[in-house]
Amino acid sequence: MEYINGIEHEEILKIEELRKHIGETVKIHGFVYKIRKMKGFAFIILRTSRRLVQCIYSEEFSEFTLSELMEESCINVIGTIVSDTRSKVGYEIQMKQIEILSTPNEESPVVINNKSMEMSLDTLLNSRPITLRNEKERAIFKIQAGICKGFRSFLEENQFTEIHTPKIVATGAEGGANIFPIEYFKKEAYLAQSPQFYKQMMVGVFERVYEIAPVFRAEKHDTSRHLNEYTSVDFEMGFIESYVDIMKMETRMIYSTLELLKEEYRYELELLKVNIPSITEIPTIKFMEAKQLIAKEYRRDIQDYYDFEPEEEKLLSECIKKITGSDFVFVTHYPSEKRPFYAMDDKNNKNTTLSFDLLFRGLEITTGGQRIHNYKEQMMKLKSRSMNAELFESYLMMHKHGMPPHGGLGLGLERFTARLLELENVRYATLFPRDINRVTP
Amino acid sequence: MEYINGIEHEEILKIEELRKHIGETVKIHGFVYKIRKMKGFAFIILRTSRRLVQCIYSEEFSEFTLSELMEESCINVIGTIVSDTRSKVGYEIQMKQIEILSTPNEESPVVINNKSMEMSLDTLLNSRPITLRNEKERAIFKIQAGICKGFRSFLEENQFTEIHTPKIVATGAEGGANIFPIEYFKKEAYLAQSPQFYKQMMVGVFERVYEIAPVFRAEKHDTSRHLNEYTSVDFEMGFIESYVDIMKMETRMIYSTLELLKEEYRYELELLKVNIPSITEIPTIKFMEAKQLIAKEYRRDIQDYYDFEPEEEKLLSECIKKITGSDFVFVTHYPSEKRPFYAMDDKNNKNTTLSFDLLFRGLEITTGGQRIHNYKEQMMKLKSRSMNAELFESYLMMHKHGMPPHGGLGLGLERFTARLLELENVRYATLFPRDINRVTP
Repeated sequence: MEYINGIEHEEILKIEELRKHIGETVKIHGFVYKIRKMKGFAFIILRTSRRLVQCIYSEEFSEFTLSELMEESCINVIGTIVSDTRSKVGYEIQMKQIEILSTPNEESPVVINNKSMEMSLDTLLNSRPITLRNEKERAIFKIQAGICKGFRSFLEENQFTEIHTPKIVATGAEGGANIFPIEYFKKEAYLAQSPQFYKQMMVGVFERVYEIAPVFRAEKHDTSRHLNEYTSVDFEMGFIESYVDIMKMETRMIYSTLELLKEEYRYELELLKVNIPSITEIPTIKFMEAKQLIAKEYRRDIQDYYDFEPEEEKLLSECIKKITGSDFVFVTHYPSEKRPFYAMDDKNNKNTTLSFDLLFRGLEITTGGQRIHNYKEQMMKLKSRSMNAELFESYLMMHKHGMPPHGGLGLGLERFTARLLELENVRYATLFPRDINRVTP
Repeated sequence: MEYINGIEHEEILKIEELRKHIGETVKIHGFVYKIRKMKGFAFIILRTSRRLVQCIYSEEFSEFTLSELMEESCINVIGTIVSDTRSKVGYEIQMKQIEILSTPNEESPVVINNKSMEMSLDTLLNSRPITLRNEKERAIFKIQAGICKGFRSFLEENQFTEIHTPKIVATGAEGGANIFPIEYFKKEAYLAQSPQFYKQMMVGVFERVYEIAPVFRAEKHDTSRHLNEYTSVDFEMGFIESYVDIMKMETRMIYSTLELLKEEYRYELELLKVNIPSITEIPTIKFMEAKQLIAKEYRRDIQDYYDFEPEEEKLLSECIKKITGSDFVFVTHYPSEKRPFYAMDDKNNKNTTLSFDLLFRGLEITTGGQRIHNYKEQMMKLKSRSMNAELFESYLMMHKHGMPPHGGLGLGLERFTARLLELENVRYATLFPRDINRVTP
C-alpha cells in the first residue's frame, strides 16, 4: 500500500524574500501578467501569489523564444536574481529556462494588467473571474483577508469562541419583510438575516462567541452601500456591565486589526495608497444630540426623528472629523421604535435603547447594543409590539432559564473594507456581489 | 464629547490559572451549574466560560443565604481560593460574597447538569439553547472551534488566502436536483452546494485560497451522516504537479490540527475521553482495488461499480485499520461517471478521475481532486455529458483566459468532528442541525 506523509514538506521559496537571494539561480512560478517588448529584450512581469516580479527576457541568456509566451500563460521560470537599482524592489530575474504549464485559449477581452481598471463597475463585475487578477483589484481582497485575520486573532485572544449557526431559519431575527423565503421540503423557511438569536443563545454556553459568516437581506435598495448578501462579523458577550463594554471591545478590535494590517499587509496598503485612520479612541454622541448637531451645523431641518438619512450620516462624520479629528464615531441611544424587540431600553429614557451604531467615514458599519436578558422584560416588550411570542419559543427558552446581562454587535465586512480603502461603492469590496440586479458571476 | 478608548483594557483573571492564586481572594463570574446541599455546607458548581469551578457555601464564611441561589442564576462571586486535594483541579473557592446578576424565570424542564445527557437525540436538539450548557455538550463545540482554528492557522502558514464567496448562486456547482431554490427578486436563484466555481476562479487570483462557510444540499436522506446545511472547509491550490499534492496538503493540515488540539484543548479532550488518531501518514488505495479488497475480505458481491455503499465505507475503514493501523484512508481514482464535470480524468484510464475521498473511521469526510484547467478539455467534457456550456459562461471565463494546473477539496466540519469524537450521529456535532424534518431551534 502507498502512503501520503503528513509531516514532510518542501520548503517553498517566499517571493517576499527573493531580495535575499541576489546572485542565485531560483525556480519560481506564476502567471505572465504583462509582456513589454523593448529593443533587443523584453520585460516579462510575472504575477506570483502576492507580488509582481519583473523578469527579463533576452536572447543573450534566455533559452527559449519570446513568442512561446502569452499574457496569462502559467509558467515555471528558472532564472538568476540580479540586483537592479532602477526597480522599486531592487532586483529582477534574468530568465534562463521556462516550462509552460498552460496557455490561455484566447486573450482577455478586458485589459487587466494596467495600473488601474478603467471601466464601468458593471464591466468590472461581469468579468470578475478575470478582472480580479489585476494587481490592485486583488490587493483589496488580500487586505480583506487580513481584516478577518485581525478580527479573529483579537477575538480568540479575548476568549471568544467561534460558532457556526444555521443560515436556514424558521423565523426572521430582524423582523420586517426583508427576508428571502426558500423552498425547504414544504416547510416554511427563510435565509438568516443575522445570527442574532443563535449568538445570544451561545452566550449562555461559552459566555463570549463570534462568527464571521454570510447573512442575507431581501432589501430592494439599489445603492452604493447595500448588498443582498454580505459577510457579517458578529460577536456577543455575557457578564457585561453596560453597552459601553461592547463599544470598548469593538474599538480595541479595530485598533488591533489596523495594527496587524500595518505590520503584515504593508505591500498592499502602499499599493492602494491606503490612508489608515487613527483609532486610539472613538468619540461617542447620543442620537438626538447628533441630530441636533447636524441640524445646527448645516442649517437643516430635522425631518426624521427616528433614524438618520444617509446624507446625515455623511454630514455627521464630516462634522465629527472637524471637531475631534476622528474618522469614526459611535452614535448611541437610538429610538426604541427603530430598534428590534430584543434591544434593551434605557431605564432613564424608555423611548431610547442602550444600543449604538458605529459610523466610519460617513457610513454605518456596525449596529450593536445591550440585549434584554430578563424573561418577563422580553415578554412585555414582545407584547407591547403585538408580536406573537409563540414564534420565538426556542429563542425565549434561554431567557426563561437564565441569561447574564449581555450584548454584542454585527459589523459589515464589505462596508468596513470599502471605507478603509475609501472605495465609493461597497461592491468594489465584494468578490462576487449579490444585488437586486445581479446573481452572476 | 465622550470617548471610548481603544487601547486600555482590564486584566481578566484566567480561570485556567486560578490554581496559581491559592490563598488569594478573587472575583469571578459564571452560571450556577449545580447546587449540592450537604450537612452544614453546600457545593456550588460554577460554570465559567471554559471550566466548572467548585465553590463552597458555608454559614461559617459565606455572607449570604443559600436560598438566594437557583441553578442557572448568573452571579459574581468574591471568594478565597483554598487548596483541596480531593478535587481534580487541586483547589476550590470559599464563597464570601455574591452579587446576583440574573435569576432564571423557571427551572429547566430538562436536566442539564448531569455527567451525561441521557435523553433522545430529538429531546436534546429540541432544547438546544439549554442542553448545550451541559459540560460535555459544550466541550464538543469548543473542540470544533479548535479544529477550525487549527485548519486556519495551517492554511495561513501555507500561504492560502481566505475568501468569501456568495451563497446565492444562479447555477448549481455539483449538478443534480439536490439544490434549494430561493425567491430572489423574480430571478432564478439557488443556495450554493459548494464554493467550487468560485474557489477555482480565485486560484487565478491568489494561487491558494480557502473558505470555511455554510453549504446547502437539498438531499432527502434522513441518515445519521447527512445534514441539509453544513460547514464546508474548502481549499484550492494552483501550480500543483498532481492530485497527490492535494492529499499531501490535507494530511499535513489534519496532522497539524490534531497537534494544536492536543496542546490547547487538553481539558475538553480529556473530558470527552477523545481517542486522538495517529496521522503521520495515511494509506491510499484505488477505488476499484478497495472494492475488490472489501469483496474478498468480507465475501460480498460487488453490487455497484461506481460508488461505495455506506456499509462498504465502514468495512473498508475496518479493513485498512487492521492492515495498516490507520484510522484514515484515501481512496483515489473514482469512476468519472460519478464525479462532477470539472474533475480531471486520468490520462491512463479515461474512465477514472484524478480525484479522491478521505475516509475517517468509516465515514467519507472529504472529496477532492485535480480539476480540468484547459478550456478545450473542459468544453469537451461538458459536451460529452450533453451539458449546456452557456449556463457556465462566467465559470468558463477562467479556463478560457488561462489557469494553472490546480485542485482542491472540501471537508465536512461536522463529520470530521463527529468521527474524531466518535459520536454516532453527525447531528451531535452540529450546534443547530438542519435536516428534512428540522428547521428549529
